[in-house]
Amino acid sequence: MSIVRRKSEVPVESRVMFGGRGEVEAHKILVGADEMYGKGRLFNHVVLKPGCSLGWHVHQGDGETYYFLKGHGEYSDNGSLIPVGPGDMTFVDSGEGHSVENTGDEDLEFIALILYK
Amino acid sequence: MSIVRRKSEVPVESRVMFGGRGEVEAHKILVGADEMYGKGRLFNHVVLKPGCSLGWHVHQGDGETYYFLKGHGEYSDNGSLIPVGPGDMTFVDSGEGHSVENTGDEDLEFIALILYK
Repeated sequence: MSIVRRKSEVPVESRVMFGGRGEVEAHKILVGADEMYGKGRLFNHVVLKPGCSLGWHVHQGDGETYYFLKGHGEYSDNGSLIPVGPGDMTFVDSGEGHSVENTGDEDLEFIALILYK
Repeated sequence: MSIVRRKSEVPVESRVMFGGRGEVEAHKILVGADEMYGKGRLFNHVVLKPGCSLGWHVHQGDGETYYFLKGHGEYSDNGSLIPVGPGDMTFVDSGEGHSVENTGDEDLEFIALILYK
């Protein structure tokens, strides 16, 4: 069955994630396993305020894509630090780890997608 | 294996889609079935210039989510026309159809994700 959700109806959750600094604001584009046909577990628009970070974590059994929309950050790709900005994409496979920090003075925004391997 | 692609390395394809007006510019965030673990067939950042549209089409065996980032458009949700803008999301299930047109005077940008049902 089709779905249309206005911005005001898209669920937003703010919380510290994986021991990062400050809160991660997650706008849930798809909600729950059913809306992803059981093929993944997360499809979010993520906002990190200046100075905030999403801490290091390793994926097991799934992989995660980030697609950067706005702002500037430092991304850890399995421990290698790289600058990221609008239009850049990153992917970590199952068994690999990543983290990201807003190193700019505006919000860092990206799309996050986790699919099961 | 992890992936990092700069904006300049993200493949871009422009073409008329489903008989729409003008070309649809698709930035391929994930490329090919392998990068989606075989769970879907499209994860794109789509840009529609003013006056352009992505024509009506029906999904079979998969569902598609749009998440709007910029601009203003008119979306057909199974034939019901609704205005869409930044932060809105839409989803069509297998067996359902949709289309979208840029009705504003700036680019209409959205993320598109197709997962297999």
